[in-house]
This record gives sequence, structure tokens and C-alpha cells, in this order.
Amino acid sequence: MPPPCVIGVDLGGTKLLAGAIDAELNVHHRAQRPSVGGDRAALLDRVVDAVLEAIALAPGEVLGVGFGIPSLIDSERGIAVSTVHLPIADLPFRDIMAERLGLPVLVDNDANVAMLAEHRHGAAAGARHAVLLTIGTGIGSGIIVDGRLVRGAVGAAGELGHMVVDLDGPPCHGNCPSRGCLEALVSGSALARTALEAAQANPDGGLAAALAARRPLTGALVTELAHEGDPDARACLRTAGEALGVGITNIVNIFNPEVVVVGGGVIAAGDLLLDPAREVVASRALSPSRDVVRIVPARFGAESGMLGAAVMVLEEVGS
Amino acid sequence: MPPPCVIGVDLGGTKLLAGAIDAELNVHHRAQRPSVGGDRAALLDRVVDAVLEAIALAPGEVLGVGFGIPSLIDSERGIAVSTVHLPIADLPFRDIMAERLGLPVLVDNDANVAMLAEHRHGAAAGARHAVLLTIGTGIGSGIIVDGRLVRGAVGAAGELGHMVVDLDGPPCHGNCPSRGCLEALVSGSALARTALEAAQANPDGGLAAALAARRPLTGALVTELAHEGDPDARACLRTAGEALGVGITNIVNIFNPEVVVVGGGVIAAGDLLLDPAREVVASRALSPSRDVVRIVPARFGAESGMLGAAVMVLEEVGS
Repeated sequence: MPPPCVIGVDLGGTKLLAGAIDAELNVHHRAQRPSVGGDRAALLDRVVDAVLEAIALAPGEVLGVGFGIPSLIDSERGIAVSTVHLPIADLPFRDIMAERLGLPVLVDNDANVAMLAEHRHGAAAGARHAVLLTIGTGIGSGIIVDGRLVRGAVGAAGELGHMVVDLDGPPCHGNCPSRGCLEALVSGSALARTALEAAQANPDGGLAAALAARRPLTGALVTELAHEGDPDARACLRTAGEALGVGITNIVNIFNPEVVVVGGGVIAAGDLLLDPAREVVASRALSPSRDVVRIVPARFGAESGMLGAAVMVLEEVGS
Repeated sequence: MPPPCVIGVDLGGTKLLAGAIDAELNVHHRAQRPSVGGDRAALLDRVVDAVLEAIALAPGEVLGVGFGIPSLIDSERGIAVSTVHLPIADLPFRDIMAERLGLPVLVDNDANVAMLAEHRHGAAAGARHAVLLTIGTGIGSGIIVDGRLVRGAVGAAGELGHMVVDLDGPPCHGNCPSRGCLEALVSGSALARTALEAAQANPDGGLAAALAARRPLTGALVTELAHEGDPDARACLRTAGEALGVGITNIVNIFNPEVVVVGGGVIAAGDLLLDPAREVVASRALSPSRDVVRIVPARFGAESGMLGAAVMVLEEVGS
């Protein structure tokens, strides 16, 4: 008998990815659409279209649909309260989708569902207390305390990227009015900024050569050059890793988790980023918390939002 | 009929305070003893003696005994895992007390039980998510998520005083190997340090006069002079309040709590400390979390540990 599935949807700012996923987290079909461009009605149509494709190509019965959205979510009402990239703010998104799809629908923040995926099936499996940082252009995060997601009074908890670790540090991004936040020091954007400074400081180095060759100094390029052994690129990752270590020190002292999981594009740097972070935690966090925590890369990469959205629904409607 | 009581004990580093307390948090009798001096056996005898006095003078039946201890506590086993001030580390304290007193005994960290008191009966009553900072010589803290204390993997969670907010800030205290922690910037000790700097910088000011009169520049004196209007003392409190505001900004972004409660000796400064903190939160924390949080003084002062220890027992054994 074909396994029952749910549809997990990662509704990102540029594309949406819908997967037909069973209880073992096998993905039976993936449907992708652009999410950028067009108005609200067009976006909703494309979402429905992708989900219907995934439903049609699922091997068996489909039990429900889950959405991970990069936005502050009122998960009780299923509404994206504020969203920078998608024209669905304040819309009763969950109820609209439930009506159009004729299935149970759940909605949560993308970092929260990614944390769920890592906690139930990934790098944080078995932990009672765990924290996920997904480091890309910015930093998303999810927090598990006693096995459950921390959501806060209005669903806005878990903004670990906007934890100030440097009182008078560089300005933060987007709609954050603060400075010296972890995101301002450790994200892909921060890595690009320190790479540019390094290229200017050492005109003979690999980063300067890349700049002269008109290659954009992105986090991805810094990581590539660092893996090739370039000292300037490695130093950039070390600087970011040490700041990350201060952030994880705070997480360790606040939550005493068994595991801190680091995902997102920047984790392509692997131990070039995590080893400096681990060194800082070992020297600055309190005992015994620092002695029990593991700091590990995420298991799930670009599909963690889709998988986590599926896990959320499987736990609610699955048998 | 006289109300049944429990005994709440605040086992501090210099004195212990045991109260016979009913379900309405009325204190029917207080027994106090020194906790400093003597060996482990002498301390245990004094604890038992104080509790027996409180039991003898309770109006009705005594249902159990709770202890709040300034230490990392393994609350499941009732053991003070590490304690700087008391000779009871690694002792099966709960079981020893239960045997000697013939009553159910519970043990937890003093800041955790103070958070319980504020959450069940005080400034955080009715909140689903709340954080307490008790600012004295150092900073203690307790965190309530979804109505329950956050304890962490080995009971070491909630060390918000050791959240780094200034990467390269001043060294922290005691057994903390870090620098720029909230405690290094905001505690009574930090206030004394900035007061000394201010006295040296302005020889005509009130702090310099106090220093010349050989009055120790404690947090308490700074607060007293600030209430009298001294500009230097007020500036010291403003500096501490702004750093506190950065710490509370982090708390607001991480936990999205309905309320942050500030207690401990330093809160004698009242709004001279809290107003600058509120200003920083308003300008640096994320919306909507910053819009829903209240930042308020604790309801319970020096007796919060005793009362919270009683609340812990009332919830476990009370009818």
C-alpha cells in the first residue's frame, strides 16, 4: 500500500518548493514555482498550483499541508503578521489555503519548522533542549525547550540573530533598528563586508585578486577560497566564527542545550567556521553547560523548510 | 481552622531565612540563622534548627519544605552541584533534609524560585512568558516559557547575567571566564566601579565628596545620592540602565515575553535605572515584541527566595 503523505511547502522570498513527503521523510515529488513577481492573487494561485501538483503526484492519500514562511507568524491564527518579501501580510493565509485545497493546513515561521526537522529527524534528534541557527544573508533561528518550540507571547520569540553581542558594533540589517547584533557580525552579508576590508588591506592576497577579477566577494566565494587554503579568506571565516562563538556562548548560558545546530548557506564553510566558534565557547561559556553542548552542522540543507513544514503537519494530522 | 502551611527556606551565602507560609503567601513565622561559618555538619544542624522553629510556630499542619539555594541545582536529584558560598556541594541535600525533617522536601536555584513567586503571585502574574533578573552583587535570573521554568539539559539554564553584550568589555566575576557579560556592566559591583571612575573624573561632585568622606562607593550609596539628585550618581545609574536595556533588548528578541521583572538590591534605584533601560528597548528591540513587553520592578524584595521556595512546595504538595 502506498504510504500516506503530507505536503510540505517552503514559501521563500524568491521561490516556493512543495514536496509530497511521507512519515519517514521520503520526498516522493517536488514542485517548484517562483514566488517573486506578480500580485497577491497571482502568488496564491501559484502556491495552490504547486501544492495541487504535489498532491497529484503523491503516491497515496494526502493528509494535510504545512507552510514554512520567512515572516513573523501568528501560528494560532495562521497569519503572516509581517513579511518583507511576500505580499501576504495580515491575510488569513491558513484559512484561505485550507478552503482552496480542501485539506488541513498549518503555518509557521521557516526557521521554526527547520528546527522541528532537525529535532525530530536531524542533527538535534534525541535532545530535550536544542537551538538552531540558520546563517544565510541574515540569521534565522528556532529554539526547542523541553521538546517544544519556544514561540513567545505573540509568536515573535527566537530572534537570536538580533541578540546584541557588541554594544556599539556595526548597524544591523533590514527592519532591525539595533547594532552589533549577531546577524551584523556573522551573516553572509557580514562575511562579504569583512572580505572587502581584507581585500583592500592586502592587495596581494586571494580576495584582492578575486576583486580585481570582478568576482563578487560573497560569503560563498570567501568559503570557496578558504577551502582552497587562501589565508585572507580563512581569516575572514575565523573572525565570523569567533563572533558566532560569542553568540553560541550566550545560547549555551541561557538555554543549557544538549546541541546547537548551525545551518544555512554559510555552513558550507564547515569546521573553518565552527572550530573557532567551539574554541570561543570552550573558553567563555560557563561550566557545566559548555561541557555538555555539541555544536554541529545541520543535517538538512536547502530543503529544511519544506521538510520541517511536513514534519509539523505529520505531528498534527499523521497517525 | 488554621491554614496548612509549608516552610520556605532561602539558604543564602551569609544567612538563611525560613518562613511558615500558607497558600495565600501569608508568612506566619520567620526563623533566621547565619549560614556563614562552621563546617558542613554545623550548617545542616542550623538549617534543621531554623526549619523546626518555623514548623513549631506554624499555625496549622506543615505539608513540606522548599529550599532556594544560590547554586547550580540538579533539581531532579535535589543536589547542589556547585556552590561557591555554602559547604554543601554534591551532597544529597534534599534526601538528607527529608529524612531529618520527616517531610517532603524540594530544592531549586534561588533565582528560579524567585521567578516562581513573581509569576504565581507577583509582578509577572498572568503572563505565559516572563523573565526575572535579580540584580545584586551579581545577576540571577529565571525564565518562564509557556508557564514553566526553563531548566536546561543539566539544570544550568537561565544564566542571563552571563550573556555577553559587549564582546571586548570588562572582565566578568567569580567563576565566569568571559568578558562584557551583562553582570560585568550592570551589577552592584559594576555600579561601584563606574561610581569610582566618576568620583575621580569629577572631584567637585557628590561621589567625590562621599569618597573623600571615606564612605564606600557601593551601589546602595550611588542609589541614595541619585535619589537626592546628585548628577554624577544619576549618570552612573543611567549608564547601568542603558546596558541593562541592551540585555533586556536581547531578552525581548529571544523570548518575546509579556513581562520582564527586575528585582534585587539594585532595583532600589527604581525608574532611575528602569527608564533608561526602557528607552533602549524601545529603540533597539524588534517590533512587535518591544511593543508588548512590560519592564517592571519585582513585587517581592529580600524575601522572594523564601516565598518562591514556599510556592514551589505548595504547587507540589499543596491541595
